[in-house]
Amino acid sequence: MGRGGRPGRGGPSAPKPRAAEYIPEPVAPNVVRVIPLGGVEEVGRNMFLVETGNDIFVCDAGFQFVSEDSNPGIDYVLPNTKYLEKNQDRVRAVIITHGHLDHIGGVPFLMGRFGNPPIYTQNLTAVMIQKRQEEYPEMPKLDIRIVEPHSSYTIGSTRVKFFPVTHSIPDSMGVSIETPFGNVVATGDLKLDHEGGVPAEHEAKKWAEIGKDNNLLFIADSTNAERDGFSVPEKKVHQTLEEIMKTVSGRLIIGTFASQFERMVHIIQAAERLGKKVVTEGRSIRTNIEIAEKTGLLKLNKGTIISSQEIGDYPPDKIVILATGAQGEEFAALMRIATKQHKTITMTARDTVVLSSSVIPGNEINVQRLKDNLFRNGVALIHYRSSDVHSTGHGNSGELVWINQQVNAKFFMPAYGFYSMTASHAKAVEQAGRPRESIILADNGMVIDIVDGKELNIHKEKVPAAPLIVDGFAIGDMQEVVIRDRQMLAKDGMFVIIATVNLKTGKLRKSPDIISRGFIYLRESQDLLNQARLLIKKTVEDSTRGMNPVDLDYVKNQLTDTMAGYLFSRTNKAPMVIPVLIGV
Amino acid sequence: MGRGGRPGRGGPSAPKPRAAEYIPEPVAPNVVRVIPLGGVEEVGRNMFLVETGNDIFVCDAGFQFVSEDSNPGIDYVLPNTKYLEKNQDRVRAVIITHGHLDHIGGVPFLMGRFGNPPIYTQNLTAVMIQKRQEEYPEMPKLDIRIVEPHSSYTIGSTRVKFFPVTHSIPDSMGVSIETPFGNVVATGDLKLDHEGGVPAEHEAKKWAEIGKDNNLLFIADSTNAERDGFSVPEKKVHQTLEEIMKTVSGRLIIGTFASQFERMVHIIQAAERLGKKVVTEGRSIRTNIEIAEKTGLLKLNKGTIISSQEIGDYPPDKIVILATGAQGEEFAALMRIATKQHKTITMTARDTVVLSSSVIPGNEINVQRLKDNLFRNGVALIHYRSSDVHSTGHGNSGELVWINQQVNAKFFMPAYGFYSMTASHAKAVEQAGRPRESIILADNGMVIDIVDGKELNIHKEKVPAAPLIVDGFAIGDMQEVVIRDRQMLAKDGMFVIIATVNLKTGKLRKSPDIISRGFIYLRESQDLLNQARLLIKKTVEDSTRGMNPVDLDYVKNQLTDTMAGYLFSRTNKAPMVIPVLIGV
Repeated sequence: MGRGGRPGRGGPSAPKPRAAEYIPEPVAPNVVRVIPLGGVEEVGRNMFLVETGNDIFVCDAGFQFVSEDSNPGIDYVLPNTKYLEKNQDRVRAVIITHGHLDHIGGVPFLMGRFGNPPIYTQNLTAVMIQKRQEEYPEMPKLDIRIVEPHSSYTIGSTRVKFFPVTHSIPDSMGVSIETPFGNVVATGDLKLDHEGGVPAEHEAKKWAEIGKDNNLLFIADSTNAERDGFSVPEKKVHQTLEEIMKTVSGRLIIGTFASQFERMVHIIQAAERLGKKVVTEGRSIRTNIEIAEKTGLLKLNKGTIISSQEIGDYPPDKIVILATGAQGEEFAALMRIATKQHKTITMTARDTVVLSSSVIPGNEINVQRLKDNLFRNGVALIHYRSSDVHSTGHGNSGELVWINQQVNAKFFMPAYGFYSMTASHAKAVEQAGRPRESIILADNGMVIDIVDGKELNIHKEKVPAAPLIVDGFAIGDMQEVVIRDRQMLAKDGMFVIIATVNLKTGKLRKSPDIISRGFIYLRESQDLLNQARLLIKKTVEDSTRGMNPVDLDYVKNQLTDTMAGYLFSRTNKAPMVIPVLIGV
Repeated sequence: MGRGGRPGRGGPSAPKPRAAEYIPEPVAPNVVRVIPLGGVEEVGRNMFLVETGNDIFVCDAGFQFVSEDSNPGIDYVLPNTKYLEKNQDRVRAVIITHGHLDHIGGVPFLMGRFGNPPIYTQNLTAVMIQKRQEEYPEMPKLDIRIVEPHSSYTIGSTRVKFFPVTHSIPDSMGVSIETPFGNVVATGDLKLDHEGGVPAEHEAKKWAEIGKDNNLLFIADSTNAERDGFSVPEKKVHQTLEEIMKTVSGRLIIGTFASQFERMVHIIQAAERLGKKVVTEGRSIRTNIEIAEKTGLLKLNKGTIISSQEIGDYPPDKIVILATGAQGEEFAALMRIATKQHKTITMTARDTVVLSSSVIPGNEINVQRLKDNLFRNGVALIHYRSSDVHSTGHGNSGELVWINQQVNAKFFMPAYGFYSMTASHAKAVEQAGRPRESIILADNGMVIDIVDGKELNIHKEKVPAAPLIVDGFAIGDMQEVVIRDRQMLAKDGMFVIIATVNLKTGKLRKSPDIISRGFIYLRESQDLLNQARLLIKKTVEDSTRGMNPVDLDYVKNQLTDTMAGYLFSRTNKAPMVIPVLIGV
């Protein structure tokens, strides 16, 4: 584009010719098909489809946050919906298991791509989806159908049953889709309510019930499959937090995720029981408390929630501050309070801070920064490594094996997790007696056909599964050239050369201009810049000598190579060199 | 610079006027001074100085790796040596406690800045420093003086004693610097050799000996102060690894750090005892084995080390592969083997892989990728969470408290760690009985004067302590404008506008050129580019209307604002907009 060609170091690579996309024919009547479109090679962007007869059901529509390192500037990645787009007339429903972003985050971006089918989900999840959709007014209006736990519906020609599961947000559910060859049962995210490894009665009853069905395929959460035994039950966390609330002598500041819905509700209820006031800091916490009230999950006494300006009106031990930012987010409430940037709340050495969350991989450095800042305030710090103030929402392998045995499906596909997690899940159930050949270790895009209810036919080719990216307003394929340019620019910056060349003589009209950003500190590099200008002039004039007419593309190539080499030799940095030659 | 000014969004901020640098006068005879220059607010770039009489001693000269997110393109950061530069005639020695990069990494860059004083260190460390120095032939030749453990020297007018400590690399030592008011004792990095929490006899004896001195100040490793009790002793790791080596039925691939010197030596010796062959993969492992041989730490039988081409000549259970890359580094041996990019080694499901390391904060995502790839090969994976195949080189709080009590110094400064670690270290020793007022929780650059051997005088101002950065060949202050530009470029890319303006009429000579990188995918954005060109033309011509002569700087400002706003409204991205106007 323009004349600013892209030769040499700063140049583009030709786009790879794209292989024809594999979109297999609809299933025959004797086949049940499952395709994971996202979520089996990562934590996040969960979505899979189940196809039976003339009906396609989609389960979840999540997104995934990605690292700045490998995907600079990208907001998030989504599952690839090409297969659904090609088959949108047969997509009967999107079933959303619960209201976390790795299950609902894709809704605004994806629903319109495959015909905006009805969404089946429980009440809280519906409210959270709607709330989020309001931020995207240009997206199509959703058709959300609120279902009850323990209910069933005929959608298209297929019977679909919903059942409640234990997770860290209320209204979490699993789904069982009836096919002529048995049910496809999927858990969404879940753990077990248990006491010392013995599942609670309600769990035993529910899973025994599901196990009575003829279950063809079981799809289950693998997030914590690499951990042995049983996870800490959430009620243990509630007890620990309540004990801390009872015994602290000063203010208590609890950092948590707004998505830890149950815990937040529990903390507020405990505060009421203990006659304490609650201050909420952070938009997501306020939003979710509003939602909790609206959906009847929380009935607040008047005056329980106070503003941060009112803190001084109460004794310190009557104050509980619920704050966002336990992952060390720079602008979240907890960091602002810890770094004395908060308008009204100042920490003192008499405060106790509880980080009621674990560290999400990738956030370690930010959490370290938060901890350092908290310690600088002299507070007492309680975190998940020192006390049971956090529990995961995902079952450990002991729970997963137990559930697997209850459901007792013919086939099993571990899902919701990185490959190391699904593989560990597979290993755990295999060691517990499941035949290896009944386990499907899937990749995203894998087409899994179950033929006559007994044989697996895994297609050799995969349907399109490369992540869709959200990059500003753009939603589409990952553009490797853009990402690679961003990575190069981040590392070594850029060096644009602008020179006006006399097309007859090949001489520069004047000393060339240089625009550089992110390369070196220019104020202290005048000598290098002067030498660079001389070398540019010499390179242009040398390479045009005897050339008539002047071939600017050739000159640009020469200039790029020469200057890239020169800059590297002087600085050990490789900025993107972009020559702009203007012929006059 | 040039005509490509920097107005608006893409523009520079004026550099902040720098406050006068605080460099206090040399100490009076009744004062002992300590200044941590790096390493008390981070893990890495360790360096502190001790000043007594007319002598300054520097302890360690490390560097720190930094995250790409917050410091794109930066190779590493170093301690700030301004105070030493101003006082270089009194710097008597740099004492290097051991050969890890956070203690030796700064040597090539820093020694020449303050007069290249002699380095005192033990043999292995000396070899490692020299080996590294060879990579920087332009740096001054070092004057390294090799010391024995349990030795003492008079350097300048001061007696300095060295004593061995237990760490994950041989020839680790601590130092005790005698002053008229008692000794300043520093540990370097260390843990305790112990059995179930009872320190080994050699530890008890050594520390009791040190405790007999009149110790003024104790400076100690805080890295694992947030962990309770005692750390797993390295010999337990050796036993576990040897047990695995004995029992595996296929090949064993061990991923570890080359810096885990003792462990590497132990693995090779165990392989010899068990009649196995060792394949080494990765340059740093080969280098360190060479160094181990050269320094007599390892006596290799002939034929123990074989090349990867010879693997097929032996039964699988006779093969141990030692590979770099347990942190998931993209181009290291382990990742290349796991992703089938290695020339000669192919993994099979009969292999056992041991990741004999913990995950360094910030590397979680890379390690996840490595684990996924390993699982895809179907190997059995053993890692530090599942088995004692790794132990830290740093003592837990139980060890630290015990050592602190043995040394029994008047004052104590926890060092070597993030603030949360030094603060936890302080808390642990305080709970064990040390008076709070004897503990110095230091920041980098803090000037700590101990007056008459009994009073602390902590200066209000700090000496320069902002990290020095290594950015290509440049070593110097962090240039915030360069870093900020890199971050902006990484996120949203750039958008350079080149237009030739008739200075009389204000008309564009032709349609403007646009050079953009890292912003959006241009091939699919022709409509946006065309509209942008029209808007550029209109903006230039509107803003020059009636202007005579044309003020190009004014036009550039208008153009930057207009185009930045337009691009953001269309894409939700904020590329760096840089207009280049050429007047004709």
